[in-house]
Amino acid sequence: MNQFTSVNDVQDIKQLLNDALALKDDPYSLQHLGKNKTIGLVFLNPSLRTRLSTQKAALNLGMNVMVMNMDKEGWALETQDGVVMNGTTVEHIREAAAVMGQYCDILGLRSFPKLVNREEDYNEDFFNKFIKYCGVPVVSLESATRHPLQSLADLVTITETWKGTGKPKVVLAWAPHIKALPQAVPNSFSEWMCKAQQEGMLDFTIAQPKGYELNEDFTPGANITHNLDEALSGADYIYVKNWSSYKEYGKVLTYPEGWMLNNDKLKGTNDAKVMHCLPVRRDLELSSEILDGPNSLVIHEAGNRLWAAQAVLKQILTGLS
Amino acid sequence: MNQFTSVNDVQDIKQLLNDALALKDDPYSLQHLGKNKTIGLVFLNPSLRTRLSTQKAALNLGMNVMVMNMDKEGWALETQDGVVMNGTTVEHIREAAAVMGQYCDILGLRSFPKLVNREEDYNEDFFNKFIKYCGVPVVSLESATRHPLQSLADLVTITETWKGTGKPKVVLAWAPHIKALPQAVPNSFSEWMCKAQQEGMLDFTIAQPKGYELNEDFTPGANITHNLDEALSGADYIYVKNWSSYKEYGKVLTYPEGWMLNNDKLKGTNDAKVMHCLPVRRDLELSSEILDGPNSLVIHEAGNRLWAAQAVLKQILTGLS
Amino acid sequence: MNQFTSVNDVQDIKQLLNDALALKDDPYSLQHLGKNKTIGLVFLNPSLRTRLSTQKAALNLGMNVMVMNMDKEGWALETQDGVVMNGTTVEHIREAAAVMGQYCDILGLRSFPKLVNREEDYNEDFFNKFIKYCGVPVVSLESATRHPLQSLADLVTITETWKGTGKPKVVLAWAPHIKALPQAVPNSFSEWMCKAQQEGMLDFTIAQPKGYELNEDFTPGANITHNLDEALSGADYIYVKNWSSYKEYGKVLTYPEGWMLNNDKLKGTNDAKVMHCLPVRRDLELSSEILDGPNSLVIHEAGNRLWAAQAVLKQILTGLS
Repeated sequence: MNQFTSVNDVQDIKQLLNDALALKDDPYSLQHLGKNKTIGLVFLNPSLRTRLSTQKAALNLGMNVMVMNMDKEGWALETQDGVVMNGTTVEHIREAAAVMGQYCDILGLRSFPKLVNREEDYNEDFFNKFIKYCGVPVVSLESATRHPLQSLADLVTITETWKGTGKPKVVLAWAPHIKALPQAVPNSFSEWMCKAQQEGMLDFTIAQPKGYELNEDFTPGANITHNLDEALSGADYIYVKNWSSYKEYGKVLTYPEGWMLNNDKLKGTNDAKVMHCLPVRRDLELSSEILDGPNSLVIHEAGNRLWAAQAVLKQILTGLS
Repeated sequence: MNQFTSVNDVQDIKQLLNDALALKDDPYSLQHLGKNKTIGLVFLNPSLRTRLSTQKAALNLGMNVMVMNMDKEGWALETQDGVVMNGTTVEHIREAAAVMGQYCDILGLRSFPKLVNREEDYNEDFFNKFIKYCGVPVVSLESATRHPLQSLADLVTITETWKGTGKPKVVLAWAPHIKALPQAVPNSFSEWMCKAQQEGMLDFTIAQPKGYELNEDFTPGANITHNLDEALSGADYIYVKNWSSYKEYGKVLTYPEGWMLNNDKLKGTNDAKVMHCLPVRRDLELSSEILDGPNSLVIHEAGNRLWAAQAVLKQILTGLS
Repeated sequence: MNQFTSVNDVQDIKQLLNDALALKDDPYSLQHLGKNKTIGLVFLNPSLRTRLSTQKAALNLGMNVMVMNMDKEGWALETQDGVVMNGTTVEHIREAAAVMGQYCDILGLRSFPKLVNREEDYNEDFFNKFIKYCGVPVVSLESATRHPLQSLADLVTITETWKGTGKPKVVLAWAPHIKALPQAVPNSFSEWMCKAQQEGMLDFTIAQPKGYELNEDFTPGANITHNLDEALSGADYIYVKNWSSYKEYGKVLTYPEGWMLNNDKLKGTNDAKVMHCLPVRRDLELSSEILDGPNSLVIHEAGNRLWAAQAVLKQILTGLS
């Protein structure tokens, strides 16, 4: 693997899952791979899980880690070409990315969307330029439109916990929020679940209020509905997540009542396990009774972020040598 | 040891002191203990000595270290249960602590008091919830009411430097300041000195102006006075520190002149050594002539922060395996 | 070497260059030197290249690294003696530096000038006090008046790339900017080039508009002109950099047109290579056509920051044991 920015960078999804679970069993067995290799983790936005799990994953593999909060320790980067830089941006991404590539064998990058201009965000302009100019393999720590380390951890969690017969029914369920959040997590989750569905691993349904439909590029083959109860019926896994509108880009639209998951709504499911990428706003996005109850997988799922990151870094390190 | 939040977590205080001094003599002898173990140092407030000494202590023991300035790199945490999180807090401590525990074998935590609601601060609500939900051993890097790594380093310093016959007289002396500071350092120092006094290691006196009396839970057996000169008479060690009022909680009260220690005030002592946890405001809390003179132990004392932290981590690591 | 704050700390400049190039060939050969040694990198100002290259250099040598953004993670430091600290500064440099020296074998320090009081900046008061009180070897990560790790990397780059006969002509060319920048990089570059000129390694010219003359202490033996075209004639290396006025201290003065380097201006040169310390504001300081063209060395030069830092740390570590 020479980059990890979406499910499309993965050659064999089942092999990657196997790698993650094997590393979970034996975390320190591959420290020779990372010896004298350095990963730079570059954040343009805050991070808790992604920062710590990726850092730990790299350490488990014997790597050196350098964390750079570019927004706080550095300065503003220019991405447009052909502009006279006499404003607030201090350095062009052409130089900044290339320089970071001089000191690191792998770079991780987090950069959120601005949620103002849909085309700009969905072009992944910043991410693509960073990849182009840095000259080393890049791992997405969440981009404007995707969060693949999260989605891989989610798939690891489903694979690992599914003890039923046949294929589990997995539902991505929109949830309320007071702020306009990116579509990166649901896009990415959907992309990975659609891929897993293609490989016969599960059945995938998305439920959201009208106006909250995701970009269709991320939902090939998904069963999509505006009826939450219908979606939840017989569900084995429910992935709860808020996102802002893609159609009316970045907007928080009005929505009917009843979209916050609680124990009552679990009744029609197959005693479904409940997932969330975190951070979660309790009793706004998801009820405390679920988070504190036996159906919640959220901490287990966060723990699997470590093995997802370690599996990805393992495959990239293998490709480096 | 499975946590370190106060002197009450220490089974054998003399053994802990011995461990600290043994590690000072031979800092790198126990690197097998920390191999493939990771400590996360989580700060909700600024730190210099505690951050660097604890990080170095962990490195000396062969551990990996991840530093997380939650207030700057992360987001605001909710601690109250049963609230709809539709305000400024982004994640509940139930999830945040549990997630950090997924990636770390030990967690260090710093969280200052707000100095508004005494009961809330003295309940150590944040700290106790963090410990409850993270699921791994926690080391206090200073809580609302205690700073035990500082106090252990202080006791190491007294033990190490006392060359007299009999028991040294140790005085905690209140000092002026322009800001309202927590009681954590003096509470903790008093708690440790009272314990050491019980074990026959020293005699302990506290001097403060009226209104600045500490919570009695932290001062069992201490000799307490409002007369600084009386307290200093025959003193061997003077621990200088400001704190805000416990009784009129968090207030800076008026006080009589003469509470800033200077060379003149040292005359009645037994050529006392002067200590301070730092940072110290020169010529407001403590005179420059003392800080720059032969009686000051403040740098030596700060250096011992390293061995205090290393002894604590050693005992926790020993308990992990 | 027991400190690295200017070219004057270097005993044998050619040996240092050789060390840098040898480490570039074989980066991990000296890891025994740094075993159980810790460097603290202390920043009072933002940093990208210096932070990452020095951190990586230390890791390559087997050291532990602790990064402290004192301006963000810590608090304001007092440098004046004899003041009652009842204002905004929380800790005196006497204590802060001494404490950091307790936990680190080597300290790196970055502190920019304020560009208000020339004497204060050029006294290097902060840096000199830090060195005096910390008690361990200090590496400048850029001070008020110098940036020697940058200059060493620049000389490494010239030495490494020069394939001509005889001595290369090196030109430091002032460039426009909208902000008032320090003189640290041009001072330091000039100081190193003048030293290399003395050793017969190159010929050195400085071109700047009237009023932008550097302090003469940094330019012994340099050929200095206000005529950019004359300076560029026959040049082999052009080092482009803005700085504010030394004479009218910290001011941005008016200047004639034509000081931004572009391909047209390269015509009179010996197909000169173009250098810049970065960050560079494109098409304000330096034209994009040069930065993106075959004459630019800026990324290569940034890459050499690593080997410059590693050579310096190697020599200091050798002196420690």
